[in-house]
Amino acid sequence: MSVTDEVLKANENYTGTFNLGHLPMPPARKLAIVACMDARLTVEQALGLKTGEAHIIRNAGGIVTEDALRSLIISHHLLGTQEFIIINHTEEKTGTATVAPVHFHAFRDPEENVRLQVQRVKSHPWIPKHISVRGFVHDVKTGRLHEVALEAARRAG
Amino acid sequence: MSVTDEVLKANENYTGTFNLGHLPMPPARKLAIVACMDARLTVEQALGLKTGEAHIIRNAGGIVTEDALRSLIISHHLLGTQEFIIINHTEEKTGTATVAPVHFHAFRDPEENVRLQVQRVKSHPWIPKHISVRGFVHDVKTGRLHEVALEAARRAG
Repeated sequence: MSVTDEVLKANENYTGTFNLGHLPMPPARKLAIVACMDARLTVEQALGLKTGEAHIIRNAGGIVTEDALRSLIISHHLLGTQEFIIINHTEEKTGTATVAPVHFHAFRDPEENVRLQVQRVKSHPWIPKHISVRGFVHDVKTGRLHEVALEAARRAG
Repeated sequence: MSVTDEVLKANENYTGTFNLGHLPMPPARKLAIVACMDARLTVEQALGLKTGEAHIIRNAGGIVTEDALRSLIISHHLLGTQEFIIINHTEEKTGTATVAPVHFHAFRDPEENVRLQVQRVKSHPWIPKHISVRGFVHDVKTGRLHEVALEAARRAG
């Protein structure tokens, strides 16, 4: 049995135990999250979110690509989210930075990378200035989110 | 207290109850999923997946964009996933198709859209032919995944 068939079987059990019919399309907590696709991060569990509460956008690295921006713009303008959270994860020696071309958005300093992603969102002309945009590094060993101070590093330097 | 502060508080409780240190970076079940960002879909719960088992890639619509392809290519070539699942959700009258420009990938027929996304993955030169790529429509009322037959419609037509 393939893994795909296994998860389909799991889905049959899931549908028997939940009724989602009451949930409206707009996220109840008006929150949208951009996070890395990393298997070790279960976003809802790590952030205490229930089904129906937040939009979750994920890609390799948790990068604010054009596609992530498209999703955030839809999330805010069509579905009313008011806070954005960006999550990257702690660095590891995977060799990714060596083998992956620039196009793959490989990076070495997760804190600096988070600052860049937050800046990309904040500076986009279609994202209103009142939207809260905060960035975090996810520690893959402990599951803890560490907030990235957006200006402190520059002030210190 | 902002929602962001609330989820950070939830994260503190999470880190006290779990130890993720043993999880390796490659997904244990060698599975990668492309799904819509819809708040009503909690991917791990709906598919019976545990933390560490699958890469999860999400955007508005569950579209196989260039960014989703970048993520799938990293997922397979660097982290060894062997099965891909594409999940879109059932249609609703949100007006999205009317207000969103083509760039936003709005669509009307979810089954036909899933077929297109699966085809985009299968036809990409960097995705090996032996990778299983299957597509599903997620019913937002029941939580059930309905597999989209990739060829049946054309045969019938």
